[in-house]
Amino acid sequence: MASFGGHAIPGGFFLLLGLWLTVKYVLHHYWRRNKAKGRPVVPLFFKRMNYGEGGMAVFASFVGIMVEQFVVSGPHAHLYDRENNSWVKLMNWQHSTMYLFFGIYGIVLLASTASRLVPVGVDRLALSMALFVEGFLFYYHVHSRPPLDAHIHTLLLVAVFSGSASAMLEVFMRDNVIVELFGSCMFILQGTWFYQIGFVLYPLSGPEWDLNQHDNVMFVTMCFCWHLAVALLLVACIYSTVWWMVNRLSGRGGDVEIGMRNTSKTSSQKALLEASDEE
Amino acid sequence: MASFGGHAIPGGFFLLLGLWLTVKYVLHHYWRRNKAKGRPVVPLFFKRMNYGEGGMAVFASFVGIMVEQFVVSGPHAHLYDRENNSWVKLMNWQHSTMYLFFGIYGIVLLASTASRLVPVGVDRLALSMALFVEGFLFYYHVHSRPPLDAHIHTLLLVAVFSGSASAMLEVFMRDNVIVELFGSCMFILQGTWFYQIGFVLYPLSGPEWDLNQHDNVMFVTMCFCWHLAVALLLVACIYSTVWWMVNRLSGRGGDVEIGMRNTSKTSSQKALLEASDEE
Amino acid sequence: MASFGGHAIPGGFFLLLGLWLTVKYVLHHYWRRNKAKGRPVVPLFFKRMNYGEGGMAVFASFVGIMVEQFVVSGPHAHLYDRENNSWVKLMNWQHSTMYLFFGIYGIVLLASTASRLVPVGVDRLALSMALFVEGFLFYYHVHSRPPLDAHIHTLLLVAVFSGSASAMLEVFMRDNVIVELFGSCMFILQGTWFYQIGFVLYPLSGPEWDLNQHDNVMFVTMCFCWHLAVALLLVACIYSTVWWMVNRLSGRGGDVEIGMRNTSKTSSQKALLEASDEE
Amino acid sequence: MASFGGHAIPGGFFLLLGLWLTVKYVLHHYWRRNKAKGRPVVPLFFKRMNYGEGGMAVFASFVGIMVEQFVVSGPHAHLYDRENNSWVKLMNWQHSTMYLFFGIYGIVLLASTASRLVPVGVDRLALSMALFVEGFLFYYHVHSRPPLDAHIHTLLLVAVFSGSASAMLEVFMRDNVIVELFGSCMFILQGTWFYQIGFVLYPLSGPEWDLNQHDNVMFVTMCFCWHLAVALLLVACIYSTVWWMVNRLSGRGGDVEIGMRNTSKTSSQKALLEASDEE
Repeated sequence: MASFGGHAIPGGFFLLLGLWLTVKYVLHHYWRRNKAKGRPVVPLFFKRMNYGEGGMAVFASFVGIMVEQFVVSGPHAHLYDRENNSWVKLMNWQHSTMYLFFGIYGIVLLASTASRLVPVGVDRLALSMALFVEGFLFYYHVHSRPPLDAHIHTLLLVAVFSGSASAMLEVFMRDNVIVELFGSCMFILQGTWFYQIGFVLYPLSGPEWDLNQHDNVMFVTMCFCWHLAVALLLVACIYSTVWWMVNRLSGRGGDVEIGMRNTSKTSSQKALLEASDEE
Repeated sequence: MASFGGHAIPGGFFLLLGLWLTVKYVLHHYWRRNKAKGRPVVPLFFKRMNYGEGGMAVFASFVGIMVEQFVVSGPHAHLYDRENNSWVKLMNWQHSTMYLFFGIYGIVLLASTASRLVPVGVDRLALSMALFVEGFLFYYHVHSRPPLDAHIHTLLLVAVFSGSASAMLEVFMRDNVIVELFGSCMFILQGTWFYQIGFVLYPLSGPEWDLNQHDNVMFVTMCFCWHLAVALLLVACIYSTVWWMVNRLSGRGGDVEIGMRNTSKTSSQKALLEASDEE
Repeated sequence: MASFGGHAIPGGFFLLLGLWLTVKYVLHHYWRRNKAKGRPVVPLFFKRMNYGEGGMAVFASFVGIMVEQFVVSGPHAHLYDRENNSWVKLMNWQHSTMYLFFGIYGIVLLASTASRLVPVGVDRLALSMALFVEGFLFYYHVHSRPPLDAHIHTLLLVAVFSGSASAMLEVFMRDNVIVELFGSCMFILQGTWFYQIGFVLYPLSGPEWDLNQHDNVMFVTMCFCWHLAVALLLVACIYSTVWWMVNRLSGRGGDVEIGMRNTSKTSSQKALLEASDEE
Repeated sequence: MASFGGHAIPGGFFLLLGLWLTVKYVLHHYWRRNKAKGRPVVPLFFKRMNYGEGGMAVFASFVGIMVEQFVVSGPHAHLYDRENNSWVKLMNWQHSTMYLFFGIYGIVLLASTASRLVPVGVDRLALSMALFVEGFLFYYHVHSRPPLDAHIHTLLLVAVFSGSASAMLEVFMRDNVIVELFGSCMFILQGTWFYQIGFVLYPLSGPEWDLNQHDNVMFVTMCFCWHLAVALLLVACIYSTVWWMVNRLSGRGGDVEIGMRNTSKTSSQKALLEASDEE
């Protein structure tokens, strides 16, 4: 990952995940506020979104692990080199471990969407753990680097651990839109901050950054706050856009909302049937 | 801000904000305890207070940013000086960033007062974030200063982060008067402590403080507790005064409470009309 | 306080407070479990206990402040010595500040017992703050001492901050007997640990402790756990004894419980009358 | 404990406890989801499980204390050696203290199962305290060791304190299967990690580990995450297996579930009788 691209790829991944989660949570929130009283079952529409999200997470983490392992300079699934008595490419192994936990999140999300036997909220716990493991490995990753390098990664940890805490909170407070959007905001922040790390450590153009200058550390701290402001703005824009679009489509008898309502009705009937079968 | 005035201005600002919030929360509490059962809608009176507060926050932070940027010794919106390869007046930029987040709080407060589509409690989250960003920037601001200077700013952080945590708690526990008053108490404490920092670092009269003497550090720690005691006393006095005044006015058929009741009645009717329009 | 007695006095105070709180909370718990459904008003019996506790807290902290100030070697209310340009007896001032906050707790307890206008739970917040201030001042008190001395005071902080957190929790979770008894257990632990500090730093007999020896630090850490076990045992014993006594007295038509019931009935009637008067 | 065996014994103990708790909590969860509405009383079956668990905890901790004290190289209940002015085998005393608190947990579990006078949730508090004391003693245990040794024990503390926090949470959130399984997952993690510590510090075969090499520290951090993944997998497997078995037995009119139902019915009747007797 010691390149601009190596930071841009996870950055893009987290950014997309954050944007996706924002859209999903706004739709959830819209549905919760406008649903009829007697239909507590989540519509098929949301189930499909979860299947897609879970499948993507499993797929992306599988690809990530494979790339980290079998890239030319990778460890090729060798952990210990007995000849030199040394570990082989621990960095790649650490990144594989991080991907593994996002894969576990995907599997848990799939399982909890598919079966009602999985306790509600376990997917949030798995997401919280994936973020915790990411932050945990980064934390010990950063030791003994130049001040700016260490600092810029420490700021990443703020976003990672805030996201982890927020996901943990969602285990206990389901369906609180503020916590949900805060979590997705932290993903967006993490994503854009990965890009920022890439720009600072491996600038595409212009002079190198002096990694020991205190002013750079001060600027980077402030820059993190600007990223946070941008992430908040993005979430607010997506919130209003999605809400407005869904409202408009549903208002003029449009297709999307009607489709959503229709699938939700049939899905709730199916879910009831499934429920009676299972018991 | 390296002067007494530079500490007195934010100090005065936070002190006024704290006093204002105390009055507002006591009125809220009075209204909650005395309202008729069937009127859950917040009266227009409180909406107007929120519009005023939000507008003031936006205005004050806009002025603050402008002053920090275009003061004679300011950066005039230049961030990087390509000639000297150095950042321009990072201190002013940091303060502008702090003001920015209080401005965001103002905007969110206005939006959440105006529209019922904004999730309840988002204004508290924005306030919590504004305080967090303030504390976050201060935390990295304080490095490598003399002991007393570092310590006196660290104590400020206690008030800032306590206020942030308290505002975060309000996201989940609406209408708990103890949390609300604790939060406004932290604002008052922050305000008076800014004055104290000014007095210690830039004494108006008398000898300079020895920034390395341990006794001074000990005194300042204790002094912080006295400020806390004074802030608690102020909140208690305002609580009793406001309660007594509102109670007396409402008891003898006075004007203020009656006016409040009247506006609240008409506003609740309006709100109901609005609500039925929106749906 | 640099003597055995100087640690034994606060130790005894906290020990007695802890034992008292345990008895009080067990009686509360007994009353909650056995009260008739239609009587939610707290009986006069508990009000009187609170008046006693609050009055004692105010009195004890007043005496404490006076003693700290006007003892022979004390500051006699002088804070700054202009001749030598130095602070006067900061240690005594710090202790006075600690007492001040326990005095505030007493006043708040009296106020919240007397008037229904004081929000429920403010007394717990005041207690939490008193403990926080105690721990806060101790924390900066302990710097640059020999290892064992610093360590033994750090362990005290564990009890102090746990007690503070527990009291803070009680603001939000009223009437949870486990939190209440945990808090009083922390008071008992704090009390016995003050004695232990006295024994270690100012041994009544036997050799001095080597303040730099690592084994002593290890022993003291373990000893703290034993104190915790003893505190738990004490709370358990008091719980069973008080429960058994109250149960027995109430079972055989005894005097104490009957008296308590009688006063509680009349008090609930009075409280209802007061309530109707106030509104 | 300075041997492989000395780490394998507690490791095996915690591993078994974790597996046992997982089974117990899955059965609880199954029972909660399938019980008839009108039977809130916990069946005798679970009471017996708690008696067994409490008894085992008391027995194991008693044996542990005896072994630590009266092993050949142990202190034989001597704490201070007056001749050499030194503490006797503090390590063994510390381990005895840890066992003591797990013994207290056992006693509290027995008491809270036997009597309805013990407040609900006290057993969880005792478990949380036992884990806290274990972590607390380990924390000061680890000082001034080589980096890898210190790090590998620090990682243990992550599992220990997470388990303690989770048990503390259970005091307030009874019957939340996610928290319960998270707690037992932390026990399994702790157990397997004890084995890992044994393998690293006292390798059964192969070369010694270099305790100062940074790569070893990095590997061990990552390895901890793998242990976490394995622990999660174990809990998931046990969950599905137990659920499937109980479901199948109850479906085909099998013996186990029927027995459980029968005992639960009679036990609920007995419990009701007891309850009416006690009151």
